[in-house]
Amino acid sequence: MSEVEVTLREAIPDDAAELLQISRQIAKETDYLIMDEVGLGLTEEMLSLQLADLYESENNLLLLAFADGKIVAMASVKAAPEFTVSHIGEIGISVLKDFWGIGLGTALLDEVIYWSENASPLHRLELTVQKRNERAIHLYQKFGFETEAVMERGARDARGDFLDVLLMSKLIN
Amino acid sequence: MSEVEVTLREAIPDDAAELLQISRQIAKETDYLIMDEVGLGLTEEMLSLQLADLYESENNLLLLAFADGKIVAMASVKAAPEFTVSHIGEIGISVLKDFWGIGLGTALLDEVIYWSENASPLHRLELTVQKRNERAIHLYQKFGFETEAVMERGARDARGDFLDVLLMSKLIN
Repeated sequence: MSEVEVTLREAIPDDAAELLQISRQIAKETDYLIMDEVGLGLTEEMLSLQLADLYESENNLLLLAFADGKIVAMASVKAAPEFTVSHIGEIGISVLKDFWGIGLGTALLDEVIYWSENASPLHRLELTVQKRNERAIHLYQKFGFETEAVMERGARDARGDFLDVLLMSKLIN
Repeated sequence: MSEVEVTLREAIPDDAAELLQISRQIAKETDYLIMDEVGLGLTEEMLSLQLADLYESENNLLLLAFADGKIVAMASVKAAPEFTVSHIGEIGISVLKDFWGIGLGTALLDEVIYWSENASPLHRLELTVQKRNERAIHLYQKFGFETEAVMERGARDARGDFLDVLLMSKLIN
């Protein structure tokens, strides 16, 4: 893959069907996902309603990357509604396998941090990532995320072996 | 309060109405709650359905403490359904203010750990607790929980001041 033109935009309700399909494909392609990926287990109608809520929310974001008009990657920022914790955004990024290694993670994370700093009420970004996923950890470190914890048994692989999971965070001012 | 007889049992769907009322009362009484407390924001019917699911689940638990036939405290263990993380239980404990300091937290946590070790497929218990909540932290340490992280800005108080939150865990074999 030499030249790919990629555009980013926020998800809208009409993306539900394609988003479900892409989420299932990404879940099959990688062992690094932990849980709660976009849309898995929802019907298209439920996801469409959620996307409408997300679009309106000031502390939640779902950002899609398109190549040739098709979704190829996404980044989410999720925050709870309670004031006590509504300043905390949890980040998730996933990229279709065919589009790994061309900088999509960097582009998405750059946009997520720009949105967090300039358009959201967030003051802390956090994420969890398997310790063996060195490429992702390197990406997060490049953007200033620091490791707060190594969570022992924070995940397990398909064979049932326990995996360390890093809790990483970045403060937003 | 000198002598109180307390009984513990798992929650059942019929507890929904009282549980909603108690959860709201507890939410008013303490500044230490973070989020996602039992039932808040749900209708009685929705909570009742959730309680039926919880009761059937092998890696989720909602334990209620009763005094004079009324709910006065509760402990929850929540785990996600995905195999990757279904061995991880997140603990929450809350006690009505009138019943603080008489050992209910200890009794509930003791039962939660017994259940985790003997009746559940869990291999890791975790929880978050505000760093200023020293009584709770002491309780968790007494039961072998260790601090994995101090999460900066992990919560904020009603005035908007940021609070440190501890991530604590205990491995279950």
